[in-house]
This record gives sequence, structure tokens and C-alpha cells, in this order.
Amino acid sequence: MASTREPDSSRRSDRSRRAIHDAALALVGEVGYRRTTIEGIAARAGVGKQTIYRWWPSKAAVLMEAFLDLAGRTAEKAGPRSGDTARGIPDTGRSGDTAQGIPDTGDLAADLKHVLRATVDELNDPALEIPTRALTAEGIVDAKLGAEFVEKLLEPQLALYVTRLRSARAAGHLRADADPRVALELLIGPLMHRWLLRTLPLTHAYADAVVDHALGGLTPRP
Amino acid sequence: MASTREPDSSRRSDRSRRAIHDAALALVGEVGYRRTTIEGIAARAGVGKQTIYRWWPSKAAVLMEAFLDLAGRTAEKAGPRSGDTARGIPDTGRSGDTAQGIPDTGDLAADLKHVLRATVDELNDPALEIPTRALTAEGIVDAKLGAEFVEKLLEPQLALYVTRLRSARAAGHLRADADPRVALELLIGPLMHRWLLRTLPLTHAYADAVVDHALGGLTPRP
Repeated sequence: MASTREPDSSRRSDRSRRAIHDAALALVGEVGYRRTTIEGIAARAGVGKQTIYRWWPSKAAVLMEAFLDLAGRTAEKAGPRSGDTARGIPDTGRSGDTAQGIPDTGDLAADLKHVLRATVDELNDPALEIPTRALTAEGIVDAKLGAEFVEKLLEPQLALYVTRLRSARAAGHLRADADPRVALELLIGPLMHRWLLRTLPLTHAYADAVVDHALGGLTPRP
Repeated sequence: MASTREPDSSRRSDRSRRAIHDAALALVGEVGYRRTTIEGIAARAGVGKQTIYRWWPSKAAVLMEAFLDLAGRTAEKAGPRSGDTARGIPDTGRSGDTAQGIPDTGDLAADLKHVLRATVDELNDPALEIPTRALTAEGIVDAKLGAEFVEKLLEPQLALYVTRLRSARAAGHLRADADPRVALELLIGPLMHRWLLRTLPLTHAYADAVVDHALGGLTPRP
């Protein structure tokens, strides 16, 4: 199209992309993943569907980028501190390039509480919650889609926990025989279980309790 | 109907109920929760839809009973040992009446590994997996349905963990300051996270590792 050759085409592109992301997230939250279509996203974003097909190979690809964009914006809105965090959200998150890792102040409990509290805030943010639930639900029944989101969105975040926990182990703050992968699932699993199944409220106090129980262990110490 | 006054009506009722359960589980696994209808269940079970309406107030009620029935049969099939177990499955399980609790041999680690290994087996059982995923996915986006299944199917099972963990605490096998509710979520949450999101294989070795990490804790012991 002619517009792509104009000097402000890059800015116009950015605006279109953002409009497409917003339309995709809104639609998936309203009608679910299966009933969201490229045509529907295009109509809502006010662009031609060829614009979407030119930039993305599939509906899943649009949504994945939309989640990365939204999570990045949410982190910015929350201020620089939470820009440092890795979250346990299955279907949102920034790419490995922008994620800066879990803080390492030398106090493992404090660092984990910081990142898990930020995760609680994001899971409870309505702008993220509804589309995240829609996409997670679809990934639970559709193994292929689930695997794609886990690989591209979740695993890069889980890797940040592995890095932080390895560093803790090197510093003698984690048991020598602890498996960082199992350890991070002990932290993230309970939060996601409570959030997905809505068993009880997901609060900062709960995030703190999970960290304290996991680090200290359930059996008595001498 | 005349048949309900015949001497063998009770046995015939049982057969119809079982056929309706099986039809409901098969349909929800095939087309998802939303597209499963009372009419569809009736047609597949070979009964009139009035039969279903006479016994159950809603589609959710049929499915809930079908899950209880299926989980009971799965437990029976697995033999008497696993009939003792409480599982972490969100949408399957027996009622509080038939569940016999988590074994209490005095060895907390062994008892928890036993019950979590049984949970792994059930989650990996294809007969349970597909309908459980369909129903869990719907509960994630439909808060009302999710709450109903949590209240009627999941919480009675979680209560069995609370009982076992309280008994462990009284025996000095659990820290005095451990919260049994948080403790059970540390055990169940990681299994469900791995199963729902399919991050890594759900195995007996993983169940054992979760128990060992949770009981021992992640920080070094003197």
C-alpha cells in the first residue's frame, strides 16, 4: 500500500500493531480463543485482514505478541521495580530480551517474595486476567497451542527462576541437593493452582507464606 | 413411565444412570463443556431427555455425578490401596462419604508419596484426562461453574490433606508453625501446574521429588 512508503509509516505501523494487539486481547477475552478470528481482529482494529496476514502467520502468533506487548506495558505502568520481575503467568510475559531477571540482593526470601507479589498483582489485574484465562483454558484442551505458549512465553520466565536459584545455591542459600526446576515449581505451582481454580484469594500474604513454607520446609528443624 | 414400577426398575435405573454418565463424559471430552447439551447426552445414552431432567437439575449436575462415578470406578480398578487416596484432581473425585482419607502409617513422607503417585496415575489415565481437561478449562473461564466444581469435588479432597497434615503436626512430624492449607497447596500445586500446562512429564519420580523438596525445604539445614 502507498502508506507504507510515507515517512511516518513506521509510526503508523506501530499504531496499527497496537490496535491489532488490543483488538486480539479484547476478542479472546470476550468470545474465547476458538471463536476469535483474524477477520474479527481486523474488523475490530479497523485494519484490512491482509495487514494482519502480512505481519503474522497465525492467530496464535498475533496473540502471543499481544501478550508480550501487554505484559511489557503492565510492567512499565507498575514502575521500574516490577520491571525487574519474572512472573509465573502461563500466557503472558516479555521475551527473553527484555526480561531482566529476578533481583539478586543476596536475600533469597526477600527476592522471591518480591517477584511472587508482583505475579499476584499481575494475575489479579483485570486487563490481563480475562485474556490470560481464555488462552490458558484453550491450551489445557489443545496440546499444540498449549505447547507453543509454554515454549515461547512461560519457559523463558521459568528460566529466570532457575538462574536465580542456581546463584542462591552457589552462595550456599539453597540446599546443595535441591533441584532448581522442582524448587521453582514449588513456588509458582501453588500460586497458579489458586488462581486458575479460584480456591481461595490470591494475596501478597499468600505469596509470602508460600515462600516461607517452601524455603523452610514442612518438617521441624532442630 | 410404566417401567419405573416394575420390580427390576432399580437395576434398570442404575444401568441408565451409568449410560448417562458415560455419555456425558464422552461428549464433554469430544466437544467441550459448552457444546455438551442435555439433548446430546440423552441421545448418546439412548434415553429420553426427560429421564435426565427428572434426575438432575442441570448439565453441570450430571457431569459432577459422572466424575464422582468415574473416579470411584478408577479407584476400584486400581485396587484397594489406591481406594484409600485423596487426589488433587480439580474435577474428579469421590464424595466425602466414600473417600477414606490419606493413609496414616506414621511416615508422613511415605504416605504423601503414596497419595501423590496415585494422583499422577489418575491424571495420566486417558479415560479421566480428556473430560477432566475439558471441565477444568471451562471452570477457568466460567467462574460460577469453576466454583461449583471446586466446592463439590475438589475441596472435599483437599480436606483429607488437611486432616492428615494436622495429625502429622500433632505427632511432631510437621512444623508447629506450618499452615496445613498452604502445605497441601505446596504438594498439589506443582503437580497440577505441570499437568495442566504440560511443561514436563508428570511421573512418580516427580511426585517423590515434590514431597522431598516440600518436606525438607529449599534452604540448607545445619
